[in-house]
Amino acid sequence: MKKGFLISFEGGEGCGKSTQIKKFTQYLKEQGVDFLLTREPGGTELGEEIRNILLNYKGDISPLTEFFLFCVSRSKLINEVVKPALEEGKVVVMDRYFDSSIAYQGYAGGVDINKIIQTTKFVTDGVEPDLTFLLDLKTEVGMQRKQKDENLKNFDRIERKSLSFHEKVHDGYLEIAKKFPNRIVVIDASQSPDEVFNNIKEIYQKRIKK
Amino acid sequence: MKKGFLISFEGGEGCGKSTQIKKFTQYLKEQGVDFLLTREPGGTELGEEIRNILLNYKGDISPLTEFFLFCVSRSKLINEVVKPALEEGKVVVMDRYFDSSIAYQGYAGGVDINKIIQTTKFVTDGVEPDLTFLLDLKTEVGMQRKQKDENLKNFDRIERKSLSFHEKVHDGYLEIAKKFPNRIVVIDASQSPDEVFNNIKEIYQKRIKK
Repeated sequence: MKKGFLISFEGGEGCGKSTQIKKFTQYLKEQGVDFLLTREPGGTELGEEIRNILLNYKGDISPLTEFFLFCVSRSKLINEVVKPALEEGKVVVMDRYFDSSIAYQGYAGGVDINKIIQTTKFVTDGVEPDLTFLLDLKTEVGMQRKQKDENLKNFDRIERKSLSFHEKVHDGYLEIAKKFPNRIVVIDASQSPDEVFNNIKEIYQKRIKK
Repeated sequence: MKKGFLISFEGGEGCGKSTQIKKFTQYLKEQGVDFLLTREPGGTELGEEIRNILLNYKGDISPLTEFFLFCVSRSKLINEVVKPALEEGKVVVMDRYFDSSIAYQGYAGGVDINKIIQTTKFVTDGVEPDLTFLLDLKTEVGMQRKQKDENLKNFDRIERKSLSFHEKVHDGYLEIAKKFPNRIVVIDASQSPDEVFNNIKEIYQKRIKK
């Protein structure tokens, strides 16, 4: 059934994901590509409610409960928005997808990674990205970039976690990239935004032609 | 680690679950039993927010998404409330637990039952009831009882589903009882409340002594 192409952007805090997604979707627009941009958590009305809990809830939420909050948002987004768009032949661009769960709740949060993967297949009915850009940046550099833009007090519930948590996220992402080398492309995000974007554009052009 | 005793009450709409739980916990109180009463969805602050979504959300929620909303509430309730209480040796009384997911989202909603069971083990770390009372009542009788008490417009999102949905719930519960005959006791809920309660009390007294 699937005729479209699913691209996810992944990376730790401050890796420049938002900037690159903006550049990339601008490029798709210029090329006249029929695309859909969405994000996790979120992307549906219920998903945005769940996003609000995940980022702003004042009480404790364990990594396991966090994972299931993502499953709620993800089950609705994938089955009701992403799958139909792929069936219509669209390019779907996702600002984070399930690799984030493996990195944040799994590698950094300590939830069983195989169970995350197994449950995710149940949630998504097996919908995987065709291509994932992992923007790789040293954790300290990323956190410094973030702090330049925003006051620490404005950080959300997940961004506020410790540096060592975010280092585990970073290392986890690199492990995931090793596991899925065909799908995930690691991009050096310490380069200038234009250099990063040129990498992304080149890889996209090669893959979309296949 | 577990020294307590976990009892769940299950059944379709109008089966008299609330009445029986009231009678049963009153009895525990009179006996000086150290018990905890809780409910699903809910039982924690976050769980009650999720309960509100499940029962009152105005948009569509698929049975799969519903199941994951239950997982959020359940992961927090079991790991943070129920497990510690069982470790302290308490009798824990649950107004609904995972059999509800198997009956409502599984048998009636069409979500894969084996995957529900597998995911539930992940959510709960394998915490199962020692004893489950299934209050069995013909669907039509149950719905009539409900309608006597409340106006149809006050029914929640799940109660409002069709009669055929609730019949599937009913039949599903009986299938589950066949699968787990040691844990689940089917009680004829067409009897008077006092007769039902006498059944429950007798069974509880036998099981708790084991």
